[in-house]
Amino acid sequence: MEHLNALSLRWAGDRLEALDQRRLPHESVYIALRDAEAVREAIVSMAIRGAPLIGISAAYGVALEAGALARTPTRDADGTTPDAPALRAQLERTIERLASARPTAVNLAWALGRMRRVLHQWDAETPGRAEDLATRLLLEADTIAYEDRQTNLAIARHALPLIPPGASVIHHCNTGSLATSDYGTALGIIRYAHEQGRQIHAYLDETRPRFQGAALSAFELAHFGVPHTLIVDSASAFLMSRRAIACCLVGCDRVAANGDTANKIGTYALALAARAHNVPFYVACPRSTLDLALADGSRIEIEERSADEVRRVNGQLVCPEGTQAWNPAFDVTPGSLITAFITERGVVRPPFDAGLRAIADVRG
Amino acid sequence: MEHLNALSLRWAGDRLEALDQRRLPHESVYIALRDAEAVREAIVSMAIRGAPLIGISAAYGVALEAGALARTPTRDADGTTPDAPALRAQLERTIERLASARPTAVNLAWALGRMRRVLHQWDAETPGRAEDLATRLLLEADTIAYEDRQTNLAIARHALPLIPPGASVIHHCNTGSLATSDYGTALGIIRYAHEQGRQIHAYLDETRPRFQGAALSAFELAHFGVPHTLIVDSASAFLMSRRAIACCLVGCDRVAANGDTANKIGTYALALAARAHNVPFYVACPRSTLDLALADGSRIEIEERSADEVRRVNGQLVCPEGTQAWNPAFDVTPGSLITAFITERGVVRPPFDAGLRAIADVRG
Repeated sequence: MEHLNALSLRWAGDRLEALDQRRLPHESVYIALRDAEAVREAIVSMAIRGAPLIGISAAYGVALEAGALARTPTRDADGTTPDAPALRAQLERTIERLASARPTAVNLAWALGRMRRVLHQWDAETPGRAEDLATRLLLEADTIAYEDRQTNLAIARHALPLIPPGASVIHHCNTGSLATSDYGTALGIIRYAHEQGRQIHAYLDETRPRFQGAALSAFELAHFGVPHTLIVDSASAFLMSRRAIACCLVGCDRVAANGDTANKIGTYALALAARAHNVPFYVACPRSTLDLALADGSRIEIEERSADEVRRVNGQLVCPEGTQAWNPAFDVTPGSLITAFITERGVVRPPFDAGLRAIADVRG
Repeated sequence: MEHLNALSLRWAGDRLEALDQRRLPHESVYIALRDAEAVREAIVSMAIRGAPLIGISAAYGVALEAGALARTPTRDADGTTPDAPALRAQLERTIERLASARPTAVNLAWALGRMRRVLHQWDAETPGRAEDLATRLLLEADTIAYEDRQTNLAIARHALPLIPPGASVIHHCNTGSLATSDYGTALGIIRYAHEQGRQIHAYLDETRPRFQGAALSAFELAHFGVPHTLIVDSASAFLMSRRAIACCLVGCDRVAANGDTANKIGTYALALAARAHNVPFYVACPRSTLDLALADGSRIEIEERSADEVRRVNGQLVCPEGTQAWNPAFDVTPGSLITAFITERGVVRPPFDAGLRAIADVRG
């Protein structure tokens, strides 16, 4: 397996290089992360963002720490590690520390859980070599990143037959390479269709309040050479009435058993407009996003974020000081407005209850 | 009749005082306009904006110029003006000059046409007194402003029965006192309902790309003490699914015979969301906005504005330099999505062809 070498993140032998997403779209600058604490700081400060990418970065953070410990001279002449329990305890602390960087992101805990399992397996084989542990942990991080990329590519391949040549599509938020190890979900479909010669053109919702479409998706598509046009969110409906739109492509944060889908605020409004114009509305959905214990979307709790995200742009007020604002980070799109889910295991059409259950049950 | 004394504009004896809208919402500063050229410059620089207000300001600009000419000492001892043709020619030039400030705004040409008629009537009564001309022109400007305010108040009164006590409503863009001599149209309904004790709460779409909802409507409602909450445009649909919304209230730029309505971009998306939630969608519509020669909205030309309005906020890029953007200033909402038009002559419900025609034909 090759080491990770993507737009968002790359392994550089003794360090992780991460695109500093705080400086996008103005500058494309990589920061070198040489230990777990630097990785944690990059996650906390949102230099690294996007749930899958946070998990992957943290996994590499553990590998970096193990590598540093392997290079310390405190070992026996035969190369075995004299104090495996101490080494393990040190890496356990590293994992705990990384897990606290963004406590709510499920991918972070999941990725660190995989790293912990490797650590425990090695620990059971004492006396092992510290270098061997570092190698195994790096391999696991590479595997997590690789599988993420493979999942995204599988979603993109399943989507390809749905994208006619010359299609114009509408995309909301950022769901691309910057949030994952590569490709991403809905934006990955667009990039992949472009690479496959589909002559795709993407209209990008700017995605207020945080401008992920303008700042991140436009940056990504420019980087990969995919033709695109930025629009304000409220122009999507009018766009569908004036130009031929082949489909809408969005990601998802959580999908209930009946297909109700939580995703970035604005997704629901876009789905309503798509329905009014008979434009297919596709949700790119890795199986990890399915939450089939939820019967429907009414139970999905919606995070309400700071009013200042609405009130200020680049720190400057766009309204009077003290204006009250309501800032839900996500909304819920009823499954009835969704044409199909595109998963790494195939396309799921209504009725969603049965279809999503079948996909979730496949051994992967 | 009293002289104009409103939030946007007030007559101060020897000068017009205009709220400098370029500095909103950060500062509430009035600039003194002492002659027609200063009024013109305020319109050109967009210190004064909003089609009705531009027309009203220009009318006062003519009155200011006539007042200055009346104060010049070049007249006979009996007070008559010796050279009425020269005075008239001077004011004709003033009117032409003001008309060129924003050549596309129909209200500007219309208001200046009224001022010109007063000028021509006076000219026919030579020898008249220059003071008398100045007084007549000021009276006409006051009348234009007064009638604008009365139109807006009539719209608000007709709307009141549609606003239940304690209503939460959604408003798009700015349609208020800042664009008119007072009250405004859709936002005027909200202010009037508040003044009448309706306990109304307004959700204000921020209205990308120019933030008229955030910068202007939030400023106005704060000024008049009307409770309000700012939201991003794409959150309106989700808001309707989570909270009880009594109605949506919007203005209009042009209305075709079948009720198809051109208004600020985002109006159509809001109307689709309102229909999905069975929320009444009301268009506040002074009769001057009716364009019944148009059978439907397909012929309405939609202005496409600079991509930089999408790309930049307060001059700062929100996307990569050189990103292509589509920036339609308006959209067209089909009449079929509109519950009723609220005009100064009453509420018009479907079928709109007959109802709007009847309203347009009333002698006013």
